[in-house]
Amino acid sequence: MSLLTVGTVAFDDIETPSGRAEKIIGGAALYTSIAASYFVRPVNLVSVIGDDYPEETLGYLKKRGVNLDGLQVRPGEKSFFWAGKYYRDLNTRDTLDTQLNVLATFDPVLPPAYREVDYLMLGNLMPQVQMRVLTQLRRRPRLVVLDTMNYWMNSAMPDLMKVLKKVDVLTINDEEARQLTGEHSLVNAAKIIHKMGPKYLIVKKGEHGALLFQANLMFYAPALPLAEVTDPTGAGDTFAGGFIGYLAKTGDLTFDNLKRAVIHGSAMASFCVEKFGPERMMGLTPAMINKRIAQFAELVRF
Amino acid sequence: MSLLTVGTVAFDDIETPSGRAEKIIGGAALYTSIAASYFVRPVNLVSVIGDDYPEETLGYLKKRGVNLDGLQVRPGEKSFFWAGKYYRDLNTRDTLDTQLNVLATFDPVLPPAYREVDYLMLGNLMPQVQMRVLTQLRRRPRLVVLDTMNYWMNSAMPDLMKVLKKVDVLTINDEEARQLTGEHSLVNAAKIIHKMGPKYLIVKKGEHGALLFQANLMFYAPALPLAEVTDPTGAGDTFAGGFIGYLAKTGDLTFDNLKRAVIHGSAMASFCVEKFGPERMMGLTPAMINKRIAQFAELVRF
Repeated sequence: MSLLTVGTVAFDDIETPSGRAEKIIGGAALYTSIAASYFVRPVNLVSVIGDDYPEETLGYLKKRGVNLDGLQVRPGEKSFFWAGKYYRDLNTRDTLDTQLNVLATFDPVLPPAYREVDYLMLGNLMPQVQMRVLTQLRRRPRLVVLDTMNYWMNSAMPDLMKVLKKVDVLTINDEEARQLTGEHSLVNAAKIIHKMGPKYLIVKKGEHGALLFQANLMFYAPALPLAEVTDPTGAGDTFAGGFIGYLAKTGDLTFDNLKRAVIHGSAMASFCVEKFGPERMMGLTPAMINKRIAQFAELVRF
Repeated sequence: MSLLTVGTVAFDDIETPSGRAEKIIGGAALYTSIAASYFVRPVNLVSVIGDDYPEETLGYLKKRGVNLDGLQVRPGEKSFFWAGKYYRDLNTRDTLDTQLNVLATFDPVLPPAYREVDYLMLGNLMPQVQMRVLTQLRRRPRLVVLDTMNYWMNSAMPDLMKVLKKVDVLTINDEEARQLTGEHSLVNAAKIIHKMGPKYLIVKKGEHGALLFQANLMFYAPALPLAEVTDPTGAGDTFAGGFIGYLAKTGDLTFDNLKRAVIHGSAMASFCVEKFGPERMMGLTPAMINKRIAQFAELVRF
């Protein structure tokens, strides 16, 4: 079924304990669409870039079945740029630089063909921009997944609350779930978030895995312990891409299938962190993905 | 098969975001022996207390099948006392007071009948004291489990390395595994720890669950997300009690059964944290434990 992802396509400078990477391709919608493309095609992408983005990357995306009809290219302008540095534990990072460039005036215009999408991934963006996507839809998608962050909770909470009312799945990390609800227990936080709108909550805990909540149901997906984590950038967006891509492929929204979607998202994220940027994700095969999913199954089997 | 646990029996003052508890019973060997007693009896305990310890507690332990022949009671002296305060995230705590009292001169003398024990749990104590237990054994136990902490890594590393050579299972938290090995990746840390002696490593991650490593095998046991965590004190020792108690009951040291033992330990720990001190653990039934283990199975099933 049809899938649309809206979010950033960007350049990143990244420093981690493993090394540095300069001006590499990144952005939530890039990671999400690459991950999703292993499960469903086309992946429709809505984003904005300057005329400085590599043709090679755009060619790669097209080859992977990512439809770029909704990708605005602004002549004479520069793409969104982010620079960050991760600390040793890889869970904390400092933003060293943010240059909004084309993102400052981003208006996500959906091509007419995208307005009846079945599966919609709203990447981390200003809540007003996320809402602007929803208002262009001609009918409600089967599933709307939204990612956000503490920055919007601090600066745009009323807008965030409005958009949450229209969302099925919220993906945030544990600290953000606590901030959003004022509840330390994730079980209680999930109950409050359900009342805000999202029927499902996915709490991303990085190396500690992910939790899926629906009403009184819970599912704990571990993260695969890895010998080397090179760069966590994009892991959450990759998770979202594997998750929604698997759901779009299977078309099954039972809790049992959502669990499998979480495992598929976790497997994709476990690849993502092995190299800088999306590099590791760009050369996968279905056999490699299936092998990793089997490792996840083995990891928790008792 | 026979089980021996050596460790502290103490009084604790505990402050958590849920409230305060003053001079309640505690200590690693107390938690471990109560947890283990749900799986195997007798649980042989070696520890030391002053004459200030409640008769009621000693009576309760006996009733639960805990053999106190190895519990030294020092007339006119006071039991070990610890006071601590937990922060909101419950993962960090400050020690407010430590009064070693009887523990300062603790010499763990094993009654002759304990010197051919099959399953030995060495609770967190000075590594020299842990070694003193091992030197009294007439033959190697089937399984030796050792708990330790960063304090001994900072102050008694050579002694800790000596005792680790004689241990099968090391249980520590993730930060301690990293400190002990200098490796951030737990996969790599496990490899280094295997070379130090322990064939198995269990990394306790609190609300994020526990990891079991043996050679190239890994198992991830989740923690059960709880609506309320009242007091994490003793959760690690309770985990150890459930783990070794289940192994002593089943007598099966395959990796598959060690996984089940980790789940039993996790289930016991999930009860422990629901009330202050060991209170919650003191009123369990096999049916309650089995129900919780089923919840763990459901939590990861996909």
